[in-house]
Amino acid sequence: MLDKQQVRTQQSDEYIIAVGEDPSSEIQKVVAVYPGPKAFFFVDSNVMKLQAKLVDQITALYEEPLVYKVPAGEASKSVEQWSEMVSFCLSHHPHRNVPVFAIGGGVTGDLAGFVASTVLRGLPLIHIPTTLLAIVDSSIGGKTGINHEAGKNLVGSFYQPKAVIAPLKALQTLSDQEFICGFGEILKYGAIADPDILTILSTKDLSELRENVSLLGSIVQRSIKVKTDVVIRDTQESNLRMILNYGHTFAHAIEKQMGYGKISHGQAVYIGMIAAGILSKELGATIKEELIEQHFGSMMISDIEIDITPDQLLNAMQSDKKRSSTGLRFVVLKQYGRPYVEQIDDTALIEQVWSSTLTRIEELKMQPV
Amino acid sequence: MLDKQQVRTQQSDEYIIAVGEDPSSEIQKVVAVYPGPKAFFFVDSNVMKLQAKLVDQITALYEEPLVYKVPAGEASKSVEQWSEMVSFCLSHHPHRNVPVFAIGGGVTGDLAGFVASTVLRGLPLIHIPTTLLAIVDSSIGGKTGINHEAGKNLVGSFYQPKAVIAPLKALQTLSDQEFICGFGEILKYGAIADPDILTILSTKDLSELRENVSLLGSIVQRSIKVKTDVVIRDTQESNLRMILNYGHTFAHAIEKQMGYGKISHGQAVYIGMIAAGILSKELGATIKEELIEQHFGSMMISDIEIDITPDQLLNAMQSDKKRSSTGLRFVVLKQYGRPYVEQIDDTALIEQVWSSTLTRIEELKMQPV
Repeated sequence: MLDKQQVRTQQSDEYIIAVGEDPSSEIQKVVAVYPGPKAFFFVDSNVMKLQAKLVDQITALYEEPLVYKVPAGEASKSVEQWSEMVSFCLSHHPHRNVPVFAIGGGVTGDLAGFVASTVLRGLPLIHIPTTLLAIVDSSIGGKTGINHEAGKNLVGSFYQPKAVIAPLKALQTLSDQEFICGFGEILKYGAIADPDILTILSTKDLSELRENVSLLGSIVQRSIKVKTDVVIRDTQESNLRMILNYGHTFAHAIEKQMGYGKISHGQAVYIGMIAAGILSKELGATIKEELIEQHFGSMMISDIEIDITPDQLLNAMQSDKKRSSTGLRFVVLKQYGRPYVEQIDDTALIEQVWSSTLTRIEELKMQPV
Repeated sequence: MLDKQQVRTQQSDEYIIAVGEDPSSEIQKVVAVYPGPKAFFFVDSNVMKLQAKLVDQITALYEEPLVYKVPAGEASKSVEQWSEMVSFCLSHHPHRNVPVFAIGGGVTGDLAGFVASTVLRGLPLIHIPTTLLAIVDSSIGGKTGINHEAGKNLVGSFYQPKAVIAPLKALQTLSDQEFICGFGEILKYGAIADPDILTILSTKDLSELRENVSLLGSIVQRSIKVKTDVVIRDTQESNLRMILNYGHTFAHAIEKQMGYGKISHGQAVYIGMIAAGILSKELGATIKEELIEQHFGSMMISDIEIDITPDQLLNAMQSDKKRSSTGLRFVVLKQYGRPYVEQIDDTALIEQVWSSTLTRIEELKMQPV
């Protein structure tokens, strides 16, 4: 005897992503849905200092704001920090409708997102990303996570926010380094799905983008549209979502091999895109590399010494978590806007691509800015 | 300027719940979908001992079974235990298709489920519940969780399994105490949604149910059907799912006030149903209490001394996590099979229900078995 029943559960999440100079009106709508009196605010320690006014403006909307300062930096994405924040929440005996606001960059968003997803099996999460990278990337798509000694982001959940509200004015206090991290991802969106982004940026340099809030807003919106179009169709990161990893398989190898901290994620992704472009051409693509390469100067890579060999980079790739069980898979382009995924078993080809990439970077370093 | 985009994500999960004496054929289908070679097996330490053959039979289906013994008992549902199991998984560098089998009762299922939901943001989870309670309750519905010093199950996630496979032969080694825990929930399903369960059981005593595997199988299937019908329609525990808490608001107060360990969850739920029945009648229900009360002897409550006052129980309720922000809400019946949710602000009424319940229990204790 074996009796069976089939169960089908369905879940749909809808949320607003709002980008603008002043986010107050949108935040007030959130308050109307989750009126408190309690609300949790996990705020990056730098944001707390540099954007005190913005933080005050948001927390003041609740009668009992429960503010927790998240130490800035990747080290905060730990089990211990997560556990402490969970205890912070539970010590205030929340019911299931108490919202969690994550105010900061990717670290705060990933960490507070994981906290929100696990306290009482899920509190409503609102992202207020304050870095360019968090706005166009980490706050969208429902990934939360912390690090583990075995690797980055290995512990976490898929958990959709109730709203993402991006205050562009917060970007004014970003360092150049932080700004280019987001810029690398924006170029990636251009390459995989919206070549107009590359065209628009081909006549602008980075400082122009920073100062022109209306231009920045429209580029940010285009970028968000690319990411949401992909994640809507692939919530659980099975296949389509892989195209968002354009350049990333290469980038992770660089980060791993150079050691985190010596090169930023944005810079590594940028180099990864140069490599992915070279691989794409090897496989027959027709793309104008200059649309990516012309931003070499802006990406501040010239002063970084990359003293690693193609062989080391290949090895680093082979131990990367995103490998399939059989061979290395890459996102490559037919042309800008037409990505596909290719499994490559010919490791000599990859080593050769690394070699060409390292040579190309040295050439670009020589060019006048 | 404030630009907005609306994002809608959808996720549907489908899984099989299979109940039978021998689960091998169904487990083999799981293996076909997740062929390994690696698979994680989190096995309750008692099950490892008492059901060694069953465990061997399942783990032998994989080339590289990675077996972890979960210490039996509620204390295992801790952050530390979760963290250790997460590290165990990550130390084997799994890819995202390595399945997690949870073999045991509610503790193992809740804990291993939370591990599965958080490693690499989700590994495929297969429940092999080995207690009656886990089969009819905790393995179904996608709740995972661990405890916190602030209360039980306060940390966790909603995460659907890929399959639930219940080997009825495992129930043979259950203690009477473990068996009645599940029996209490079965009576609850009868009360809230399938009165035929109560009618069938009105002519059977508990030992008959234990020995008659075909009867047990059909009662278990009816119970699972009640739970799945509810959770399908309400994955995230908003409203409908509340009816599954019939008796539980009362039960939690008893458990909290008496101290966990002095009374089992099943016994507490049973007393909670007597209380909920009394409240239902106060609100105008027409129900035959004897369909629940006739099992008083089977539930082994006669020897438990319940030396708490209605006043203490009311206080315990008011600090329960399932309170709404305004008043106490209860699942009550119009008649068997017709539950509804009622908010009751009149605390004197609740105190009176507690008083009647305690009196009724003393009366039932006096009756001949």
